[in-house]
This record gives sequence, structure tokens and C-alpha cells, in this order.
Amino acid sequence: GYEKQEFSRFPTKTGRRSLSRSISQSSTDSYSSAASYTDSSDDETSPRDKQQSNSKSSSDFCVKNIKQAEFGRREIEIAEQEMSALIALRKRAQGEKPLAGAKIVGCTHITAQTAVLIETLGALGAQCRWAACNIYSTQNEVAAALAEAGFSVFAWKGESEDDFWWCIDRCVNMESWQANMILDDGGDLTHWVYKKYPNVFKKIRGIVEESVTGVHRLYQLSKAGKLCVPAMNVNDSVTKQKFDNLYCCRESILDGLKRTTDVMFGGKQMVVCGYGEVGKGCCAALKALGAIVYVTEIDPICALQACMDGFRVMKLNEVIRQVDLVITCTGNKNVVTREQLDRMKNGCIVCNMGHSNTEIDVASLRTPELTWERVRSQVDHVIWPDGKRVVLLAEGRLLNLSCSTVPTFVLSITATTQALALIELYNAPEGRYKQDVYLLPKKMDEYVASLHLPTFDAHLTELSDEQAKYLGLNKNGPFKPNYYRYISKQSSCTVTLYVKLAFIK
Amino acid sequence: GYEKQEFSRFPTKTGRRSLSRSISQSSTDSYSSAASYTDSSDDETSPRDKQQSNSKSSSDFCVKNIKQAEFGRREIEIAEQEMSALIALRKRAQGEKPLAGAKIVGCTHITAQTAVLIETLGALGAQCRWAACNIYSTQNEVAAALAEAGFSVFAWKGESEDDFWWCIDRCVNMESWQANMILDDGGDLTHWVYKKYPNVFKKIRGIVEESVTGVHRLYQLSKAGKLCVPAMNVNDSVTKQKFDNLYCCRESILDGLKRTTDVMFGGKQMVVCGYGEVGKGCCAALKALGAIVYVTEIDPICALQACMDGFRVMKLNEVIRQVDLVITCTGNKNVVTREQLDRMKNGCIVCNMGHSNTEIDVASLRTPELTWERVRSQVDHVIWPDGKRVVLLAEGRLLNLSCSTVPTFVLSITATTQALALIELYNAPEGRYKQDVYLLPKKMDEYVASLHLPTFDAHLTELSDEQAKYLGLNKNGPFKPNYYRYISKQSSCTVTLYVKLAFIK
Amino acid sequence: GYEKQEFSRFPTKTGRRSLSRSISQSSTDSYSSAASYTDSSDDETSPRDKQQSNSKSSSDFCVKNIKQAEFGRREIEIAEQEMSALIALRKRAQGEKPLAGAKIVGCTHITAQTAVLIETLGALGAQCRWAACNIYSTQNEVAAALAEAGFSVFAWKGESEDDFWWCIDRCVNMESWQANMILDDGGDLTHWVYKKYPNVFKKIRGIVEESVTGVHRLYQLSKAGKLCVPAMNVNDSVTKQKFDNLYCCRESILDGLKRTTDVMFGGKQMVVCGYGEVGKGCCAALKALGAIVYVTEIDPICALQACMDGFRVMKLNEVIRQVDLVITCTGNKNVVTREQLDRMKNGCIVCNMGHSNTEIDVASLRTPELTWERVRSQVDHVIWPDGKRVVLLAEGRLLNLSCSTVPTFVLSITATTQALALIELYNAPEGRYKQDVYLLPKKMDEYVASLHLPTFDAHLTELSDEQAKYLGLNKNGPFKPNYYRYISKQSSCTVTLYVKLAFIK
Amino acid sequence: GYEKQEFSRFPTKTGRRSLSRSISQSSTDSYSSAASYTDSSDDETSPRDKQQSNSKSSSDFCVKNIKQAEFGRREIEIAEQEMSALIALRKRAQGEKPLAGAKIVGCTHITAQTAVLIETLGALGAQCRWAACNIYSTQNEVAAALAEAGFSVFAWKGESEDDFWWCIDRCVNMESWQANMILDDGGDLTHWVYKKYPNVFKKIRGIVEESVTGVHRLYQLSKAGKLCVPAMNVNDSVTKQKFDNLYCCRESILDGLKRTTDVMFGGKQMVVCGYGEVGKGCCAALKALGAIVYVTEIDPICALQACMDGFRVMKLNEVIRQVDLVITCTGNKNVVTREQLDRMKNGCIVCNMGHSNTEIDVASLRTPELTWERVRSQVDHVIWPDGKRVVLLAEGRLLNLSCSTVPTFVLSITATTQALALIELYNAPEGRYKQDVYLLPKKMDEYVASLHLPTFDAHLTELSDEQAKYLGLNKNGPFKPNYYRYISKQSSCTVTLYVKLAFIK
Repeated sequence: GYEKQEFSRFPTKTGRRSLSRSISQSSTDSYSSAASYTDSSDDETSPRDKQQSNSKSSSDFCVKNIKQAEFGRREIEIAEQEMSALIALRKRAQGEKPLAGAKIVGCTHITAQTAVLIETLGALGAQCRWAACNIYSTQNEVAAALAEAGFSVFAWKGESEDDFWWCIDRCVNMESWQANMILDDGGDLTHWVYKKYPNVFKKIRGIVEESVTGVHRLYQLSKAGKLCVPAMNVNDSVTKQKFDNLYCCRESILDGLKRTTDVMFGGKQMVVCGYGEVGKGCCAALKALGAIVYVTEIDPICALQACMDGFRVMKLNEVIRQVDLVITCTGNKNVVTREQLDRMKNGCIVCNMGHSNTEIDVASLRTPELTWERVRSQVDHVIWPDGKRVVLLAEGRLLNLSCSTVPTFVLSITATTQALALIELYNAPEGRYKQDVYLLPKKMDEYVASLHLPTFDAHLTELSDEQAKYLGLNKNGPFKPNYYRYISKQSSCTVTLYVKLAFIK
Repeated sequence: GYEKQEFSRFPTKTGRRSLSRSISQSSTDSYSSAASYTDSSDDETSPRDKQQSNSKSSSDFCVKNIKQAEFGRREIEIAEQEMSALIALRKRAQGEKPLAGAKIVGCTHITAQTAVLIETLGALGAQCRWAACNIYSTQNEVAAALAEAGFSVFAWKGESEDDFWWCIDRCVNMESWQANMILDDGGDLTHWVYKKYPNVFKKIRGIVEESVTGVHRLYQLSKAGKLCVPAMNVNDSVTKQKFDNLYCCRESILDGLKRTTDVMFGGKQMVVCGYGEVGKGCCAALKALGAIVYVTEIDPICALQACMDGFRVMKLNEVIRQVDLVITCTGNKNVVTREQLDRMKNGCIVCNMGHSNTEIDVASLRTPELTWERVRSQVDHVIWPDGKRVVLLAEGRLLNLSCSTVPTFVLSITATTQALALIELYNAPEGRYKQDVYLLPKKMDEYVASLHLPTFDAHLTELSDEQAKYLGLNKNGPFKPNYYRYISKQSSCTVTLYVKLAFIK
Repeated sequence: GYEKQEFSRFPTKTGRRSLSRSISQSSTDSYSSAASYTDSSDDETSPRDKQQSNSKSSSDFCVKNIKQAEFGRREIEIAEQEMSALIALRKRAQGEKPLAGAKIVGCTHITAQTAVLIETLGALGAQCRWAACNIYSTQNEVAAALAEAGFSVFAWKGESEDDFWWCIDRCVNMESWQANMILDDGGDLTHWVYKKYPNVFKKIRGIVEESVTGVHRLYQLSKAGKLCVPAMNVNDSVTKQKFDNLYCCRESILDGLKRTTDVMFGGKQMVVCGYGEVGKGCCAALKALGAIVYVTEIDPICALQACMDGFRVMKLNEVIRQVDLVITCTGNKNVVTREQLDRMKNGCIVCNMGHSNTEIDVASLRTPELTWERVRSQVDHVIWPDGKRVVLLAEGRLLNLSCSTVPTFVLSITATTQALALIELYNAPEGRYKQDVYLLPKKMDEYVASLHLPTFDAHLTELSDEQAKYLGLNKNGPFKPNYYRYISKQSSCTVTLYVKLAFIK
Repeated sequence: GYEKQEFSRFPTKTGRRSLSRSISQSSTDSYSSAASYTDSSDDETSPRDKQQSNSKSSSDFCVKNIKQAEFGRREIEIAEQEMSALIALRKRAQGEKPLAGAKIVGCTHITAQTAVLIETLGALGAQCRWAACNIYSTQNEVAAALAEAGFSVFAWKGESEDDFWWCIDRCVNMESWQANMILDDGGDLTHWVYKKYPNVFKKIRGIVEESVTGVHRLYQLSKAGKLCVPAMNVNDSVTKQKFDNLYCCRESILDGLKRTTDVMFGGKQMVVCGYGEVGKGCCAALKALGAIVYVTEIDPICALQACMDGFRVMKLNEVIRQVDLVITCTGNKNVVTREQLDRMKNGCIVCNMGHSNTEIDVASLRTPELTWERVRSQVDHVIWPDGKRVVLLAEGRLLNLSCSTVPTFVLSITATTQALALIELYNAPEGRYKQDVYLLPKKMDEYVASLHLPTFDAHLTELSDEQAKYLGLNKNGPFKPNYYRYISKQSSCTVTLYVKLAFIK
């Protein structure tokens, strides 16, 4: 009954839908970067209706076309070149096989980069079954290459909602094989197991979750006392945070804007809403290329940082008439309202780099007096009755997910962290990790970082014995205490402010 | 007996001395910036031997020359212009007098900026007695102005060690007046009270401490179970941290180098040891002015950040022969060794921006074969037998303390935070704060930041009710959870890494 | 006889060809940006074989498909939004019709932006006949829109060489219409008229030429005494130079690299060969995004600038093993040799931003032991026997022409300058301009610039009478003397160095 | 009669004076940097009244105190370390003695750096007599060291106007010695010879002039047909221009502001008037340190550059109320008027980096209702009746001359250029250089630059024979044609704009 209920909420055609709790938004977000690799073959047969087997006569997979395996293998090889950290981990740990006996069920984007992760897990001893976490993002040829290499992959580009859950189900629901580890991205796999196969958790040693959404769900489960296995929050590792946000956005904001609009940055006035890590990355890049950037903030500390970094902090209404570009990076909703869209000047570009698709009130633009014109993929001109055009990118969804690519290097950091989290959870003795959500220990973060330093030919300094003693540190780290985090979950000294004097409103 | 023992460790003349636990290093660090304001009068009489009284016939103070009060008042007025946040706090809280009844004994640098703090405390209802935390840093005319205004100040520029403790003692040891709050910078005052007047703590509601050293001492006391009153760690507030380190160093590294050496930054090769907040600030400034900057690091995460920020991460030995400038920002010891000093090229400048004077092994340079030549204040040429000169700044002590000035704006942030911490501790009901070291609540940090935004004409955005609800935040903040800190003291999920596989050394 | 001879040099199919003097290289360079707009219709009929007429029954044009006119009109309208300077010129001069009677034959890229130029010329009174200067760059729908609007356009995407000259010929060779102005880009049109219809020059009042190649040809003609009409060198106007080189490359280097390789810039080591305006733009952008950039130079003055701007100046051989990216910006040949390609590390990207396709010795890579693999459009992996891959972009042709787009704003500056140059030459009395190559007067440069300031909401300061007098300037400019140029053609004080002392080699 | 007339225009005490044509302003500008080196001895005897001789019994000099020679020698040695280019030239040319027979009379600042130049000229064979070009700038100990080394120096710090001309006269007017070369800085020496000893020019082979003012005078002489010897304009050499303006101002604006005001740059709003090379340098530095910078411009081309570089171009009146700092870099007069000073906010800092002291209308501030308060050397608070203070630096004179130091490296470039210009003019055969003002040939500029590259360990690339041929260049340069200049004196194609259509105002 469950499956039916779930599925009835979704239209068969994947059009615009409201977000359901049972499927993460990211699973249906358009995902452009991989698109260029994938053939737009006119083969309309559903992979579920095909009979395919790989060269070793296995049929335990479902991909678009197993014959694309060779092309996919080349893509994986190219990705391997840029994921030297993961390859280094594979080489170092291959002898010990720290995942021997692990049966991992995974649900992630299926791209050349995740293929390198999956094959690394295999090389370390794990058996893997894998589904896609997004109906659009699968690189068919990569899925084929994985299937050819013996991994049970169930994924193709352009799945229907029904296909999506069917694939996940095929990964979990198998007679002779029971998963003991979960690697999830978005929480849909975890959700499915909770709803359909709760008994599976008896064997599961842990969940590794990468996405904001999935981590949020895990904390909710934990809060509700329903989390029944340890979970590792990979999303909030220091390294990943910095790379996914500050550094990655610094690069992708330029890329996303250029690919969609060819806009010239120099001299343009722009406003960035929100000065967290994402906003900082966007602002730094745009300023560096000659844009004049304004910042809006609600938090006075971030506002002060923006000031010191050379940005004027203004309210959106104060600059909305003059800017050429509006970028939201807040995680908040309705940061750009219809009223503000009405006041923008002709040609103003509006896009979202934040954590959800709620930041721009796009719904308010779907009114009869406004005309929408799709001028390129991911680019709409919304036209006012007086002829004014506002250029809306990716319909307000995440610009960097929709319109630019994520550097392989960033994906390498995530993948390496995921692999290490799986190793840690799988090897830890029972009881060591409770039914809680954990952050990766600082030492592990440092290890992931150190694996990536050779990419930059960076040479680390080693502490002398004398220096280590002076600093009270182990020579091999961790070099910062666990509490030295950009985001940690608790402070020992948390107090609510007592003083409630009238002068502090 | 105590006093004697302590003092016997110090030579009467303040020359080079080893650091004693009983006196913070900063109390004897040279302190240049204020010097220019102060007359080099030939009055050699010790203030302790003078009979002075202010215009209201009070003699409860000891300063160099009460007649300089008018000049000092002007200095204070100028400082007030740049400390608008503190003045705003004074105005807002003046009606409520939240410090009515407070008897504060303080020990800080005595400059125009701290005078604004002291007078603010007075305006909010407090009585104050004050000594200097550094024997060199007092602006005599400012001390005179405070004395004239009725504050019991005991401080002058060029105190002896004996004078230093005498002044502190005069603040604490008074028959008719007993302190109930302590404001300390470096921990010397707190130390003195512990050793000499432990009973005073019965009345003390709390200690507010600003310096790294002082905070360290407090944590040690707390760990040893000897902390007998609540203490507020003002040093680690987010706002102060960012300003004292990243932003302040970004400005002062340039200033300190120019004032001492007139070096041209453009095209010069430099190595910055350590890429924490201080190192980040130095690197950003030097790169921005056209220097080619190398970074050394022990922590792979910081190393990766340096890479992404565009710096080559090298070992010091790899670049030591080619660089024109070496800057230490590590907090470690012997980061620059004699061997490395031997290998530097002619004219290489060496200086320290870190947290102690141990980073450069200066002692190793005091050998017979090397000649020291003092070429300017704070600038020594150390000359090798072959004629090679290394330019050593501030004898390896902190460059920005010794050779540049701290912007009043930064001091304003510290002073505002100190005032609010005093208000919080003084007003909190008994039992609310235990005998522990506390960080300022996030809300207070935000309030300090918001008081400083008008300086930049920055306009904060306010959450709508709908948005606040969506984010689960109070419209007036705090906008980040308490655990959103750059440095916090504990993580709920701290685990020691289980995995000790051979591949992770 | 001429036509035949010329054409016999070219294969019918446009593959790799050696550069002939009779056709500018740019005419056959691939040109990517427009491609996305244009349908890949399966209509294989040559436009020369079609019978088409516009809605006013005119057939004096030859385009791919006149029915695309409406789509093309929309593209032109969008371009008009970003070319407000040209539209402003159109509005200001429309009343005076300064080109009334002008019969302009033009040969440029045919894109939405040039359409705005052509329609501006029409609005100012000119009659126009137009061909494409590049066999790939025509936007078919824009050509259709121009034809529909009554302009005699002869151009389509994917012309053969024969088509190319046929189109030009159709513009020039018309019985009832004789051109009196030439607007050329690359010199092919001018060349054709010289060779085939020299008598046309009797009526021509002047040539306006935009490209480096075309200007070079004009100077050669002038030097040889064969230039028979005045020519205006639009290429070397200050405004165009700065925008086409420094500012445009600053943006397009990032765009071109991202679109082709998705490379992450942060932390990557790169070498830029040549530190002229193009190199300066590339270096500034890459450094701003966190790359570590080395520079090679032959000119000590440019080398010194690179130093001061914070780049290490090295020989290519010194860094070739360590860099992740090599960019040539020299205008020289064989700057990157096979030997250096052999020494690059695996995955090194090589591309050219300079003025020709000779900078990388691509020919040397076409040897049997190396495998070429086309991985994306414009991206080849060249694979060494040991598996090493070098990533070659655009086969060594111009990256920004091939793999990124040129901002409309830059095209607007060029188009405005072209329009003003035509107006000046057409209206100048006979004899004012000799048979020589002229730079646009400073005043005209300033006027072009001022027309573009509203885009940035920039507000110019006006001199008071007193100030103008003090400076000896006209209040309306020119504000710099004619000799204040970044590139001028002669110095009054040119001397050859007398001193030939041995110490100056 | 001449001398009297001239001198009567000057008060004996060097206070504020109007600028006379007969003395360059720079000769009386305060000059701070050297001050710190020089003793403030209480020896009040005029050097003219002293009897001094050096250790070789020569008395042909007049300095403050010959006994300071040893101290001065050390200063010169330190300067030599940073002027390796000049020392390299000295070594390379010492064998050839290209200045053998040269009798050079010089008038420059007398500092350690110019001492290195003078001693280089001596080492190359020249005899030198030298005076100071500024009454304040002489480093007495350096003058003593030069005198001790046998150079006839007539200069001391704090000359009166009468002393100033007396010293120059003593250099020129000597029975047994007649100058054949002039090295001038400001034109006062040249002026004196013209007025008093015109016959000297019969023997003079050329004048080398460094300053803007002096060069301007030479061009005026040339225009008036009164220039009777060749002159070399060293001021406008490309290398010097870039370093004296762009790069030097980039560093000195920060230094000058910090030393005088300790202002924090981060987040401050500033307006820079003028976006030439000086303005570009100031803007780049201030933006890099987190300031928000506005630009005012009269020239639309420079305005467009400012836009593209990320600065808002505004009129001064539009931002005057909000800015914290106003910097003038225009060369114009009354750029900041009393009306604008009236509108500035409290604490606004005003200073001048331009080419004259006329940019800020300082005179307008000397009215009874305003109070001036000197708060530090070079810093005045001008106080309005309502208490508002404007912080005026260096009384509107050049900030970088008055309040910061010039890097030795920049002085090295100038000195090397001067030496080479002297060599060229002295060795050129008669007739080669006419009675005109010349720019240094490009080749010489390149040579100066190349001598300075070792400072940065910069490695120049050499052209292959094939490449040189391809580019049409000599392998040893010049690498750019003579017309490739930032500032040249004539364009071959100069035309006045013909078109005077109404739409171009």
C-alpha cells in the first residue's frame, strides 16, 4: 500500500511539482553538466523492458544501454586522472581491504566521479548495489561501464518517478543479499528502507549521508528518537563545507552566469543577498572581475564582515532599481519578492545560489500580465506589459547545479570523505557509535585534506618533537582540537543572554 | 613574602628578561604607537614621589603630570569620534545605569581609547580604579585627564616592575572601597588578587578578561578547580577574533613593515609561516600589493585553504634562500631557526606577527660572530662575517604591537564587548553563571556588531514574520545558533577516530 | 583568371588549410558562440539554389531561410537592449541623417550585434549591402531578419570558399548601385575590390577596417603607395584596444576554460606566455580566482610590470613540468614547442589567447606515436605512448573566439566606433584625409566612451571654466592630447640609441 | 641685479609662500622621510660660516658637519644593497669609463640613494659638483660622506633661500672648472645657469632633467626657441612613469595615510578624484584593503576604465556627504572646494596625491570661523563652528612626498635612467642631438628595466633566431617600436575631428 500511496502523489510526467517529503527535491532537479556527455539516442524503449547482460553474462543491473560501456570506461578513466586523492586512498588501503564483507547500498548521482568512488569501494572489499538520487543526472555510459565491471547499477537518465523508486527498490530488495551499510545523497534511499524494509536496519552498521536535506532528515529522526543506527554527517565536514560553498561557488557563479547569459561582469552593479560562505564566494569572484557588489544581510556579524571585505551593506529595496544582477544566497524564502521584481530595471538578471528554490518568489511571476519567453536552456525572459524584461535563470532553482559544472576536485573531496566515513563506521566496534548523527573526527578531515595536497604540489611542514610538545599536539595531528570547527553542534558554555535591558532590543 | 619573591626575579631596569609566569609578557612589551603622543619631558621625578591633586582636590591617583589633563582630554575627545559604538551604548544605557553600584578594578593599556571605555563605565553607574597592564603603554596625558575627571588612575609611561605592582596594589588595596568586578588584560591583576587578597573574591561577581594569555590562565585555574568566580572570555568572541586577527593584521602588516623598513611590496618574494586567521590576513594584504607569497603549514586543512586562495604551500627550507621577507604567524616556537637565518639572502627581513616572541629563534643570533647594528627604532641589522645582513624587526616580538598602530575601530569593538560583558556578569542573578569560563552569548556578539554598523553606513535587512518562522529564528536574533562559532569549546559529537589502519599514519 | 587561381588554393571542403594571403584566417576560424542560436536544420539545399523573397517582394539577398526572420528579429531586439550606446547614437543623429547618400558595402560577422549596427547605418541614411567575413559565424535567423527588413544580405552559416567569394561579389558587383564606403573586417572585401573592381575606388570615400589583419594589410598597401583612398584604422582606437584585449580577455579566459574543461582555477599552477594587454587580462583573472600564475616575457619592461603585479617571471622550461595550464598570449610563433609539450605533466591544458594560431606548435603533435582523442567540441586529448594526456583546446586557435562568447558590450564599442568612423570619412571634405591610414581622433574615442557610460550609470564630472583654462583644455574635450595614446604610430623624438658600449649587449 | 630681484621675492624664513616661477615648488616642499636619519643637533652655526676640510685636506664643499661622514657612509652602503641595478651598471661600465672627462654639475635631493648615483658617475670617470634641489631634503650625514669621498657637495638640511642659491652658485661658478653636463631635478640649476652664466652653455653637451616641472620648463624653452643644448626628458621614460605613478602610489597611499592618521581602510568609503596612473594606483591599493572607492573623472575613457575596474564613477557632490576620505589625483585646481569641505562629514580625511598643491582649495579654509588644530606633524584638524572636524593632511601638499617614503627601488630606476641619459648625451657625436627635448630611446628604457630584474629573480625569455625573424625584431631588443609608448609627443595621424554634427556636443 505504501508504494502506491507515495506514487500517487506524483504525476507521471516530471513537470513542475510541489516538493513532497517522500522525495528530495534534488532528485528531480535538472542537472545540466552531464548532459553533454550523454547521447540523445532515439531509443525510446524503457530500460526496464530491455533484456541486457554484460560480458560476464550477469544481468543484475538495469541501465540504458550496456553497449555504451566502453565510452563510459573512458569517462571514468579521465575522471580518475583528476581524482588522484581517491586513487591514492585506493592504493594505500587496497592491501588491508578495510571494507571486506561490507555490502553497501548506495543512492547518489551516477557520474564518472561517483563511478570512481564505487570502484574504490569495490577495490577495498565491498559489494555494492547502486541507484541514482536524481532522475536526470545519470550518465548512461558510465552506468553501463559500472554494470559491465560487475556492479549492480539501476539507473538511467530520464527516469520516471516510478522508475526512480523501482531502481531503489531493486538495490535493497534482494533475496540472497542484505545490505549492511547505506551511502545516501538526499535521504530517499534511507527513507525507502525505513518505510518498506525496516528490518534491514538490524544488519546496517551505519548510514553515510552527504546532502543538506538528507542530514536534516537524519537529525529529525534522531530528535524524534527514531534513528536506529549510527549516521555520519558528511555534509558538514570542514573540508567539504569550505569547498562546496566558498571555493566552489567562487568558481561556479562566474561559470553559470556566462554559460546562460554571456553577461560582462566588469562595471556591472550586482546585489548578493546573504553573506554566508556561499555569498562570500560569489562576492569575491564578482568583485575580482570588476563588478560593483552590494550585500544584504540580516545578521550584523556577517554584515560587519561584508563591510570589512569592501562591500556596501544595503537593503534590497535601496538598490533594486539600479542593479544589473540579483543573486540570492540566503537559504531563506521570498528574499526577492514580486514587488522587487516589478521594480527591477530592464534586462536585470535574477538567479539563486542558495540552498533551496524558495528564495526568489518565482510563483508570483506566473500571472497573466507577464509573458514568459524561453530564450535558451535554463534562461527565461519574463516580460512586463511595458516591455521590460527580467532574465530569470533556472526558474529560480540552484544556478550552479543547473547551469554550471562542479569541478571534479570538489567531487573528489566529497567522495574521499564518503569512503573514509564508510570505513570508519564499518570497522568501529559495536557500541562505539550510538544511534546518533556524528560529524567526522577532525583527524579524518585532515586526512582527506592531506590526500588532496599533491594535486597542488603542496608541501606540508612537519612538527619537530620539541614543537609538538610545546603545542601539546600529536605530530601527526589532529592539529586543531575537535572544537575548532566552523560549524559544530554544541558549545559547552552556551548561555542564554540574561541581560534584557531596554537598550538591547 | 610574596611580593619580594616575585620581584626578586626581575631586574630593576627593564631590559631583556625571561618571561615569568607571574607577569604577562605583554606587560613589558614595548608599545610604540602611543609614544608619539607623549612628551619626552625631562622630569625625572618618580610620580610616586610627587604630590598632586586634581581641580576637585582629590589626590587618589598617581600619574606623571596632572597638568597634562587638558591635552589628554582632547585626545579622548578625538578617540570618542571614532568610537561611536561605545558612545551609542553609553547614550542608550545611561538612563538605566546598569552598572549602578558596580565597583570595577581594571588593569588595561591606558590610552585614549580605554579612557572612553572607563568613562562609559562611569556613565553607566560604576566606580572605577585603574592600573596599566604594560609598563610602557600608558599615555601620560590621558591618565592625567582621567585623574582630573575623578577616576583613580595609577599609571605612567616607563614604570619599573616595582612601580607596576605598586600601581595594581593601590587599585585593589583600599580600606573604604572593595571591588566587585574585575576587568583584566593579561591576567596580572587577577593574579595579584589571587595571591595577595584572596578574600576579595568573596565580593567579586565576575572577571572579564581580554587577552589570550589571561584567558589561558583562567582556563588553567578552572581546570585546576581554583576558579572561584565566573569569568567571561572576551578574547574569543567572534567579532573580536575576526577583527583582532584577520582584518587587523591585514592592515597592520603593511603598516608595520613600511614604518620600519620602507620596503616595497611589489614583486617581492615573501614567506608567511602559518595560515590561521593572522596568516590569512597577512597573506591577503601582501598579495594584494603585488608580493609573491609562499605559505608554510602543518595542518593539511589550512594548507588546502592556502592553495585555494592562490598561495604555494612549501616548506620553509625550500624557499628560505630566495625570499625577501619572512613573517611568522604560528604561535609555535623556533619556526625560524638559526640554520635558516644562516641561509637567508642578504637584506632579508624577518619579523613576527604570531602570538608569542618565541617563533624566531632570536637567542641563536646572539653569538660572537654576528654583529648587531640598531639602524632605527625596532630595526636591527644582524651582520654575518661575510657582510650579509638580516633585518630583524622588533627583536622578534610582535610586529603589530611594536611597530604599527591598532585602528581605533578595532579597539572600539573590544571595549564595547568588555562593557557588555561587565553588564551581563554584574546583572546576572547569583547562580546563573557558575565558577567557569564563559564565552559571550551569540546575541551579545551580534549586538556589538550591530552597534558598529553605522560607522560603515551599513543597513541591515530585517526578517519578515513569515521568514523568521520559516527559518525558526527570532526576528531580533540571535541569527546563528550558539554552536555556529569559529571557535567553540566543545562539540557534542566529538569522537576519537576509531580507524587506525596502517594507511592512515 | 584571378578568381580561379585564388580558389584553386582551397579545397572545397573546409578542413585544415594553410593560411593564404588572399583570405584572412578569421574568415575560416570556427566561431562557436553563435552556434547555439542556429538551427541545425536538415535543409541541405544551398541558399544559392533557392528562390526566396521577403514580404516586400524583394529578392536582392541570399540567406539560409527567410522564414526565420521573426526569430532573428527577436535576437536583434535582445541585442539592442545591451547596445544602448549605439541606439543612443541612432536617436541623436537620426534627424540629421549624416549618412544620407552613403552606399556602404560591408563584410563582417553577421550576428545580432552587427545587425544593430547595420540597421543604425540605415537609420542614419545609408544604403547597405552586406556579406559575412567568416564562413561559420553567420546567425542565419539574423541574416533573414535583415533581409526581411530590406537589407541586401548575402551570408549563411557554413559557406564554402566559393560561396564566400560569391557573396562578397554579389555585394560589390551590381549594375545600378555603386558603393562609396567600405566597412571591412579582415580585409577580404577590400582585397576583392582591389583585385576585381579597382575602378570602384574612384567613388569610394573611405575604408573603415576593424581587424588586426585588415589594418596590417592597409598599412602594407600604404607603405607600397598603393592605398588609393583614406582608411580609418578602427582596431587601434584606445577604447577598442582596452576592451578587446585587457577587459575582454579578463572575462573570456575564464569562460573559455570552464566551457571546455570545467577546470577548477583555485590552487592550480599556470603559466601565461606574454604580458601584453592580453596576458595582463588573463593573469589578472586567473590570479583573482586563486590560481598561481607564472609569466614568461621577452621584453624587460613588461617583465618588470609582471613582477610588480605579483607574478614570478620565469622561462617556460623552468616551470613546464609543474604547471597545470599553459596559455600563450604573445603573437609570436612556436612559443610552446614539441619538446615542451613532451615535458608537460599528465592532464596539462594548453591553449592560445594570442593573435594567431602559430603560438603552439600544434603541427609537431601530429606524429604517429601520439594519439588524438576528441573528447568534446574544441577539446582534444593528445595521448603519449606512456598514457600521458595533454589537453589541447581549439587545436591551438584562439580560445576566446572558439570557445567563449564576446560580451555584447564590447561589440557595442566596436560597432559605435565603426559607425562614427564611417560618418567622419563620409562627411569630411575632399582632401582633408589623404590616401593614408588614420587613427580615429581622440575626441571621437572619447565620444564613443561617453556613449557607453550610461550602461554603468557613471556620472562624468564637468570642468569649470576656470579649471578648463588652468589645464588649457576645451571643456568638452578632448581631454588628453592626441599624443596621449597607448599605441601611436610615431614619436617626434625617435632616436636610435647612439651608445653602443660593450656593457649594453 | 638678478640675484637680488629673485631673492627679494622670498622671505628669509621658509614659511608658506606663493610659488615663484624662479624656484620650483619642490625645492621648498617639506620632505619627511629623510628626517628620521638626521640628527637634530643644536649646532646653530651656519655651514657657510664653518671652516671644514675632509681627511684629504680638501675644503671644496660645504656641509653641515664633515664628522658625520662615517655615519653617512653606512647609510650609503645600506642603500647600495637595494640599488643593485646601479651597482651592476657601475661594474659593467667601470672598465670603459664612458664618462671620462665629463664634468657634471648636479642639483638633486641629496640622500643615500642619490649618493649612490653620484659615486657611480664618479666611478665611470666623471667629476661632479652637487647642490640640493630642496632646502629640507638633504641628509646631512650623506652630504658629509660624499664630501669626505672627494665630491664637492654644497648642501645641508634647512637651507635658507639665500643658502639655496648660494650652494647652486658654488657648484657652477668656479674658476678652474667648467661643467659640460647638467643633471637637474626641478630646473632650478638650469634656470640659474641661463640667467647668470649663459656662456656656460657653450661647453654643455646636454641637460638631463627628471622632474615634471623641470621638463615643462625645458619644453617651454624649446618652444620659445631658447633651448641652446640637447635635453633628455628622463621623467617621461616608460619605466619611470609606471614606477613613479602607478606602482609607487599603490604603496605610498597606504603608508602615508597610516603614518598620519592610523585610519582603518576596511569598509571605509573613499572617493578618488582622477583616474590617471596615480589614481589607478591609489584605487587599486585601497580597494585591495577593503575600502569602498568611488571615482570622479572628466575624461570618459578614463571613466570607462574605472567602471571596468570595479569603481562607481560619480560626481564629487554626489558622494561628498558620505565618504570618510577624499583623495585628489587630478593635476587640476580647486577639485575640492570650500563648499564641498563644508558638506563633508565629521572626521573626513582630505589629502592630495596629485601633481600640485592646488587641488584642494586650502586657502578657502583659512577663514576666521574655522579653527585649525595641528594634531600631529602634517596633520591638521580644521574645526567648524558646530564642532565638525575635517582632517587635512600635509596642508594639501603631496601626501607621498610629505608623509611617506619612496621605495629605494623606485629611486634606483630613476638614478639608473639618469646615469644612462648622461652617458648617451655625453658620448653622442655633435649634431646627433639637436637643441631639442628628447625622450630616452626605447632600447635604453628596456636596458634600465633589465638591470632591475635580478631584484625579483626574474628570468627573461630570449627570442630564437626564427622567432626574431618572424616578429621582425632584433633579438636584443628594442622589443617594442619607439611609437609603443604610454606617452609620446606626436602621432603621425593626428587630425582634428571634422565632423561637427549637432549630436556631438
